Amino acid sequence: MKELEILFNRIIQRVNVNLRELNFDVTPFAMTLIIPDQMSKFYAFYGITPDHPLDLHFEHSALAGSYFLGKCRVRNSILYKSDIRGDELKRKDRQINFGKFTLTLTKDERIDIEDSALVKTLVHNYSHDPETPEKFFIKDTLAMDYANIHGSPSDGCFLGPYATVDLTTMRDCIIGAYSYIQAGEISHLNVDPGTIWVNSPGNFNFYYKYPPELLAHYVSLSPEKVPWGVLIDFIEKRKFEFQRVFDFVNLEEIESIPKTASLDRYAVVLPNIKIADNVLVSQRAYIENSTLGKGANAQENCFIINSHLEGLNVTAHGAKIIEGYLGLGVFVGFNSFLCGKKQNRLKIGEGCIVMPHTIIDIEEALEIPANHLVWGLVRNREELATNSISLEKFSTIDTTFSSGRMHFEGSGASFVKAFKDRIQHILDVNGAFFADGENAGHAQKNQRLSLNTIQPFQFGPMEGMYPNISIVP
Amino acid sequence: MKELEILFNRIIQRVNVNLRELNFDVTPFAMTLIIPDQMSKFYAFYGITPDHPLDLHFEHSALAGSYFLGKCRVRNSILYKSDIRGDELKRKDRQINFGKFTLTLTKDERIDIEDSALVKTLVHNYSHDPETPEKFFIKDTLAMDYANIHGSPSDGCFLGPYATVDLTTMRDCIIGAYSYIQAGEISHLNVDPGTIWVNSPGNFNFYYKYPPELLAHYVSLSPEKVPWGVLIDFIEKRKFEFQRVFDFVNLEEIESIPKTASLDRYAVVLPNIKIADNVLVSQRAYIENSTLGKGANAQENCFIINSHLEGLNVTAHGAKIIEGYLGLGVFVGFNSFLCGKKQNRLKIGEGCIVMPHTIIDIEEALEIPANHLVWGLVRNREELATNSISLEKFSTIDTTFSSGRMHFEGSGASFVKAFKDRIQHILDVNGAFFADGENAGHAQKNQRLSLNTIQPFQFGPMEGMYPNISIVP
Repeated sequence: MKELEILFNRIIQRVNVNLRELNFDVTPFAMTLIIPDQMSKFYAFYGITPDHPLDLHFEHSALAGSYFLGKCRVRNSILYKSDIRGDELKRKDRQINFGKFTLTLTKDERIDIEDSALVKTLVHNYSHDPETPEKFFIKDTLAMDYANIHGSPSDGCFLGPYATVDLTTMRDCIIGAYSYIQAGEISHLNVDPGTIWVNSPGNFNFYYKYPPELLAHYVSLSPEKVPWGVLIDFIEKRKFEFQRVFDFVNLEEIESIPKTASLDRYAVVLPNIKIADNVLVSQRAYIENSTLGKGANAQENCFIINSHLEGLNVTAHGAKIIEGYLGLGVFVGFNSFLCGKKQNRLKIGEGCIVMPHTIIDIEEALEIPANHLVWGLVRNREELATNSISLEKFSTIDTTFSSGRMHFEGSGASFVKAFKDRIQHILDVNGAFFADGENAGHAQKNQRLSLNTIQPFQFGPMEGMYPNISIVP
Repeated sequence: MKELEILFNRIIQRVNVNLRELNFDVTPFAMTLIIPDQMSKFYAFYGITPDHPLDLHFEHSALAGSYFLGKCRVRNSILYKSDIRGDELKRKDRQINFGKFTLTLTKDERIDIEDSALVKTLVHNYSHDPETPEKFFIKDTLAMDYANIHGSPSDGCFLGPYATVDLTTMRDCIIGAYSYIQAGEISHLNVDPGTIWVNSPGNFNFYYKYPPELLAHYVSLSPEKVPWGVLIDFIEKRKFEFQRVFDFVNLEEIESIPKTASLDRYAVVLPNIKIADNVLVSQRAYIENSTLGKGANAQENCFIINSHLEGLNVTAHGAKIIEGYLGLGVFVGFNSFLCGKKQNRLKIGEGCIVMPHTIIDIEEALEIPANHLVWGLVRNREELATNSISLEKFSTIDTTFSSGRMHFEGSGASFVKAFKDRIQHILDVNGAFFADGENAGHAQKNQRLSLNTIQPFQFGPMEGMYPNISIVP
């Protein structure tokens, strides 16, 4: 057996040991996950900028097609086309406030991935766990296609395809396909597919669960099968466009980008696009025949097709917008799938919050009024009525509220404020408010990014594995 | 001042301190040597194969466009488009015989470059100095375009453009432009441009010096000027062809290469070429409209244009063959320039040895009979008569022999045998004799090579410098 298979089997065993109490075996899902032949085909790459510390250590790992920024250590792991971004990690001496505690970091934070296999998974941001402020750990974890591990240390977990864990520390958990979890700290949970759960203990608790038979049309996962459904087909159909951007060392520069905006060299951009000031288009974003207004950001793995975004829009990781018109400041959360039709477009009014993992898939034209919250599955006006509410009305809730499959308890005003604050923060760090040389964010700083590649062994027992590489300034 | 300039000034100072007794200042030559803007433009790359140990350490250095194989350490140095090949380094426990001594290596040999600037310089092979069998050092050394440091540890030296030092340890020496030195151990020498000197103390001594006024037409070097002459123009005219091969990550494979031959992915190949079994075309070789017969090798930086090579030909580093017909087993040494004309071709008979740094530049057709030794400047039949001799006749010399500007003392037979043995060895290591799965050399093993890139800082005070990188299996 080659080293890569030995390593993969060892990772599977470690994940299974962690999940033994949930009586869950990842083996049948893992079988289709890693194709050994593919692991030697793609180079990995890392970015260097003057804006964040560089400290990369790769040890006994396979890294095909993965991307790294900042301080990362990867050991005994398999990362396939994953995106590991340590450019927002906390720095030495920074003070963080958490309830009544103020913590001072004794060293720069580092992402530390060990004994894990991540496939097309985004690992971003920094550890939001005050118990582990200097280490964003991911260990004994298996994450499937388009999972997001966002500010969420993980130990002994399995994430299905399109699962997102956000600002949450998890131990020995199973996160079902297309579930979104933001819940502080979780342990020994088996989260069903299509669960949307935002919990801030003492403040609010938002819960929605997709009807399993309807979710299955979009994302399905069964043992011993590769995931299938509309969301998977959508990406498969467009994957060849990505080939080109990874095959060239130097692509011709696209002329019409303002100096204050940045378009990643590994983004796919198809005619005709308009990009305004302070726009950020991240790597592996896909933009086709669309307009991104001032301060909009298009994050990693998002798709924006035949759409107009007015400005200050957040299109979060993995979100898809097709045939849409989005007003000023519309937020579209992780992995949402907003699919209008050419003759029946989707219009989303100014200031709307589209919750993470929302599916809007319409046959008739649909308009969402300004300043509304939208969640779950929306295929027509009737479902919209059930799965949306004005932010004003939502802010008046102070006990409980239910609508269709959604249940909320706590303070609606806190929930809306938490979301609005976060959107403001996202726009800020991405450079949306840059003016007169002030408030620079990723859109401006990424122009000072250089990308470097590393490659695996091509032959022999180590085929597909990478040499041990350490890179420091 | 940026880090790159500080480093370069420091290297110049160190070289000057070493050369103080020769009263030589490298500063005016160095001024035109490194263009800081160029240093961030080119990626460096390294090869991984299962056939040699990988151990690369880059520390506080600029490496633009340079290539590395095997075990190399580079510290406080500037390497610009250099080729540093450690795949033939000696391994731990190998025994080497040197006169009455048998030495056993206590560890793998390593190339160790420190406080040096090398421009388009080849560093190949391994240390032939029994005093330093485990370290092939290059320190406090400045080498200019197309210099070859071949099996030659160097401490405190300056090499002019197209200078070759072969199997020689040198300390505090100046090697003039287009000089070829193979002399065991040299110290505190200032070698004039165009000196061809092959000395094996107690066995033979070969000496030729180009007429300075005629050499100047081909290679010239003056303080504060970039080198100029026919040889420089020749390369400048073809440099854009190299652009393409470095700009693409994956080039389409060329179909017609036999399985036993290898064509490096960074070679330039223009129509129409024929490549037979066991042929090796190395990186940065340039082949245009030519035939390479069975077992021929085209080494790094060589050019073969409109020519036919019958087979088992060695075209050494930097050698150029234009409009030539070369018989079986013809050897063309380092940096030779063999320039026939379309209507007046150059024919070199079977078994000929063209000495390193030979210039044959003809207006009338010229034929060199089989089994001859050729050296120096040959522009017509008259000069050929002076600068060549049959190997048979040469082998009868046992005291001294002079012809034109060439002087020989010692045993002609030893000289011819030493050359013939070396040619056989070069063919062997390059895989020319591969048959039935036996005698594999570079031509066969290089098919198992994968190339990886590394890149410099693109912005800020470290622009053009590389991060510190260490790569081990």
